[in-house]
Amino acid sequence: MTIQELHSGLDTIWVVLTAAMILLMEGGFALLEAGFVRHKNNVNIIMKIFADITIGTLCYYVIGFGLMYGKDIGSFIGTNGFMMSGDLSHLQFSISLDTYWLFQAAFVIAVISIVSGAVAERINFRAYILYAILMTALIYPIAGHWVWGGGWLGQLGFMDFAGSAVIHALGGFAALAAAIFIGPRKGKFLPEGLSKIALPSNLPLASVGAFLLWFGWFGFNAGSTLSATDVRIGHIAVVTMLSAASGGAATMLYTLFRYKRSDAPSVINGSLAGLVGITAGCAFVSDGYAILIGAIAGLLMLFVTDWLEAKGIDDPVGAFPVHAVSGVWGSIAVGLFATDGGLFHNGGWHLIGVQLLGLLVLCAWGFVLTWLGLKLIQLIVPVRSTEDEEEIGLDVSYHGMVAAYQEHEFIHHDDPYNDADEEQ
Amino acid sequence: MTIQELHSGLDTIWVVLTAAMILLMEGGFALLEAGFVRHKNNVNIIMKIFADITIGTLCYYVIGFGLMYGKDIGSFIGTNGFMMSGDLSHLQFSISLDTYWLFQAAFVIAVISIVSGAVAERINFRAYILYAILMTALIYPIAGHWVWGGGWLGQLGFMDFAGSAVIHALGGFAALAAAIFIGPRKGKFLPEGLSKIALPSNLPLASVGAFLLWFGWFGFNAGSTLSATDVRIGHIAVVTMLSAASGGAATMLYTLFRYKRSDAPSVINGSLAGLVGITAGCAFVSDGYAILIGAIAGLLMLFVTDWLEAKGIDDPVGAFPVHAVSGVWGSIAVGLFATDGGLFHNGGWHLIGVQLLGLLVLCAWGFVLTWLGLKLIQLIVPVRSTEDEEEIGLDVSYHGMVAAYQEHEFIHHDDPYNDADEEQ
Amino acid sequence: MTIQELHSGLDTIWVVLTAAMILLMEGGFALLEAGFVRHKNNVNIIMKIFADITIGTLCYYVIGFGLMYGKDIGSFIGTNGFMMSGDLSHLQFSISLDTYWLFQAAFVIAVISIVSGAVAERINFRAYILYAILMTALIYPIAGHWVWGGGWLGQLGFMDFAGSAVIHALGGFAALAAAIFIGPRKGKFLPEGLSKIALPSNLPLASVGAFLLWFGWFGFNAGSTLSATDVRIGHIAVVTMLSAASGGAATMLYTLFRYKRSDAPSVINGSLAGLVGITAGCAFVSDGYAILIGAIAGLLMLFVTDWLEAKGIDDPVGAFPVHAVSGVWGSIAVGLFATDGGLFHNGGWHLIGVQLLGLLVLCAWGFVLTWLGLKLIQLIVPVRSTEDEEEIGLDVSYHGMVAAYQEHEFIHHDDPYNDADEEQ
Repeated sequence: MTIQELHSGLDTIWVVLTAAMILLMEGGFALLEAGFVRHKNNVNIIMKIFADITIGTLCYYVIGFGLMYGKDIGSFIGTNGFMMSGDLSHLQFSISLDTYWLFQAAFVIAVISIVSGAVAERINFRAYILYAILMTALIYPIAGHWVWGGGWLGQLGFMDFAGSAVIHALGGFAALAAAIFIGPRKGKFLPEGLSKIALPSNLPLASVGAFLLWFGWFGFNAGSTLSATDVRIGHIAVVTMLSAASGGAATMLYTLFRYKRSDAPSVINGSLAGLVGITAGCAFVSDGYAILIGAIAGLLMLFVTDWLEAKGIDDPVGAFPVHAVSGVWGSIAVGLFATDGGLFHNGGWHLIGVQLLGLLVLCAWGFVLTWLGLKLIQLIVPVRSTEDEEEIGLDVSYHGMVAAYQEHEFIHHDDPYNDADEEQ
Repeated sequence: MTIQELHSGLDTIWVVLTAAMILLMEGGFALLEAGFVRHKNNVNIIMKIFADITIGTLCYYVIGFGLMYGKDIGSFIGTNGFMMSGDLSHLQFSISLDTYWLFQAAFVIAVISIVSGAVAERINFRAYILYAILMTALIYPIAGHWVWGGGWLGQLGFMDFAGSAVIHALGGFAALAAAIFIGPRKGKFLPEGLSKIALPSNLPLASVGAFLLWFGWFGFNAGSTLSATDVRIGHIAVVTMLSAASGGAATMLYTLFRYKRSDAPSVINGSLAGLVGITAGCAFVSDGYAILIGAIAGLLMLFVTDWLEAKGIDDPVGAFPVHAVSGVWGSIAVGLFATDGGLFHNGGWHLIGVQLLGLLVLCAWGFVLTWLGLKLIQLIVPVRSTEDEEEIGLDVSYHGMVAAYQEHEFIHHDDPYNDADEEQ
Repeated sequence: MTIQELHSGLDTIWVVLTAAMILLMEGGFALLEAGFVRHKNNVNIIMKIFADITIGTLCYYVIGFGLMYGKDIGSFIGTNGFMMSGDLSHLQFSISLDTYWLFQAAFVIAVISIVSGAVAERINFRAYILYAILMTALIYPIAGHWVWGGGWLGQLGFMDFAGSAVIHALGGFAALAAAIFIGPRKGKFLPEGLSKIALPSNLPLASVGAFLLWFGWFGFNAGSTLSATDVRIGHIAVVTMLSAASGGAATMLYTLFRYKRSDAPSVINGSLAGLVGITAGCAFVSDGYAILIGAIAGLLMLFVTDWLEAKGIDDPVGAFPVHAVSGVWGSIAVGLFATDGGLFHNGGWHLIGVQLLGLLVLCAWGFVLTWLGLKLIQLIVPVRSTEDEEEIGLDVSYHGMVAAYQEHEFIHHDDPYNDADEEQ
């Protein structure tokens, strides 16, 4: 056994284990979203996540990875590596190509899962599958190439350690585009401009989701080192924890003093906002700034949630406030607080300029491509559920079943369709 | 610190962490099964898993491990190592014996958990405990010895990397025997030959289970290297992911086009079938074949589920289609696709012959020993619940409690028995 | 790459991964407790855990860590290291200070989470937040200093590998003090001395919690080596498994034979008692003793649960029987069974004397400081919920929302408060 073999083995298990943790985040997304939306759409939102992780994985394998990490052309796009074949010798790391691919696949599935929440309760399931294909095969991989695959943004010095911008801001703006394109749920906004709310179908279930996400985030951020001997791992894990804690604490105390009650969905989303916020800078900022980043991310999430309501944009689980807003804030925070190059560390305005440019491009790309993609899909299949489908609930409409049956009697095979909406 | 010490430490944490992941799969089994069965049997099925992981662990410690990995006699059985004592110097690996034992214990608990699903909703709890003892102390360990403990099947060249055959096919055929022995649930099949279905009590809960199983499977397959410096780890993890994705995608799209709805339990079981299918070959087949293995496993699972219904065999959570069928298919697929020795790689018919022989022996062993075991147990305690117990639900019958109470009032200590079936 | 760098990387990822596993135990605590308490208090108990993990983390960062691991004064208290700054060169380990801090933070959050269960369903949420601050900033860190931070108990030779005493016994006695201080839930005990029981709102949810806790415990115990090359890791993981299995099996069989039913909450708590019981001795006792420790821990948990009922002390989720009793028993068991120094290994009475002294001090510290702390908090905000708040449920009272809504209609923003108690 040589040191080199040991080193390679060590890095490999680190990346495989953290990739598994990130993939467990899909369980987190599924349960968080299912817990937040109405009972009649629980199964559908979980099936959307299954679409992400099954079909999304295959699309990224066949097409996406090559566009993202294949041999660069024009600093714009990768051109080989489809199905992990071809000459990928330009990719140099201590882990195997397989291991690297797995980690990247876990990332792309996270991006599409962000969008799934914003279109909850009203998207046609077939249209969603088509959109998931677009996102995992094209939209995200091309933008990812610019930052992490050798493209122009990375060359400019854009800093996004684990994806506040590439994953969360891009995914969050794609979510916004989709939410606007598809329109609000029936009954969410009243003609006179008032908005109404849906009550969460299951907060304990949403909490399971939040805890799985939190756990997976240690893999997300610390695993992004791609090497177990990276001396920043401990620091990355600590600031991840501090920012999440700070985001959750800020929302817990703010809602407690402002509304005389600690609002549970806000606390959950506040912690997640803290996690998103630190994702860009976890390797670059100090503990104290991590606490600040988390607190601001949590509070921004609250304000933007209200702003969306006021604007008549319906984002059922808060995908935009949590992912886009915190992602943007976290990426800007790198420009402000990065120990090496940040404005507050005498780094001047260069880094923050690059960060803003990168954000603008990535958010616009996510938004515009999603809009165009949905326009295209509209030609094939209606993007929006019919009024009836939405009324009955997507679970029965697209999956022939609701989430939970209390009955003990056996029924005939074709009954679930008829009986489901009579279920208590 | 020497390289050897580092190497040993690295392998140890790899195996301990992956063993912990496999043990978390018990949570996956429990919740998947609880979510699929009727509400009145939720507690019971979780308690069966607790029986597996508590009593099963102890039985494997006291007896099973010795039979499986003790000093070989006649290529048939191990003869020492009970309670991990005695001379086990024939076992040579870079990890400690303790660590090895833990990983193997996690495996045996998975086997018995497969059976728990097939006998759901109608087995006497005491009979189940006795059967769990038989399985973890005798049935699985002896067969395991043949393949992994130095026995005759391993000597013949039978290839089963992480247990498609030894664990899933054997467990799945044991499940089939138990399901036939015990007969269908009351009301499941009508006299005229029609079958009826039970609606899942909680699909989000079942999904939690599926995500935990998926996560744990990375430990199951990649951890089976037992060494962190095994260069196949990355590849194993990737094909595990691809096959699961493919199994899930195949069932999602098939049910969507065939029935106009993506059937959620099918998608969940399809992903699991993909995971089972790749378990034998994860170290031996290419990415492309992994996708093929997963897709076929998913579709076979669907067809065999229907076939069981038509045959009047009641397997409430699909233990046989998911574990036995995919396990058999995955083991045959090794004979077909293995890069080294597979039929499609000019390996000729030898390997596939060995695989078929091994499968035949392992499946028959699981089936016959389970049947005989239940016959034996029948002499001590009725294997089947009484009609009343089944009607009331096993939760109240064996555990004096149902799964969920909405009431807020305190009650007298002896009330749960009386009130439980009035609970909404 | 030098051996030293590899060693450091290996230890770091081991501690970061196990710390993440311990932090996932917070999900375990939240769901276990939510599943055990009444439906109307589900959200509140999860929010208490969020208070632990958000506010508790920040308090430990700002104050607690320094008191626990800062430069020692008088063998009693640490004096620097607040916000991880200052000269901490007296702390010597192969991992970075960051990594070490994260692991310790995961521990302190576990301590406060133990208390959360004992005061369930009747504590004022603001008072709980204040108490969580006290516990994570002062009570636990000071006691932790005595044993692990260079203080007098550690100097005396007190042995507590992963915290049966420092975490579980101290936390459990703090829980007892809080439960007594705050008094029983309304309606729990009848005037004539009889007690009534609350039925669990969701046993499958509690089981999710139990499985997450079990998984995390491998991190808790094996991770406490703080070094991946510690040759005891495999053994620690195995005895952790055996003791948990034994605690669960003992309670499963005991309740089966004594009451003709295996009581699910008892089996869950029995497994957890086994886990707590082995936490002190996991590195010091043999497999056989681990099985004994677990079984006794499980049975003691049952008896003490009944004893609390008889004494009129209301501990809704069994925090005292599970954590304090098993923690005390596990710490004494070290004195009896430790291979090096235990009474049964010719170690004489010295070790057991030290263990008893340490337990006495730690339990008294947890109890008295909690009592005084609550007295103090009482001056600022009522510790106990009002009768109305308790009647309506803490979810609506403190969070304006219940745990689960079946309705599909959107409602006006201010409706959840009014409608929540009408929810089915």
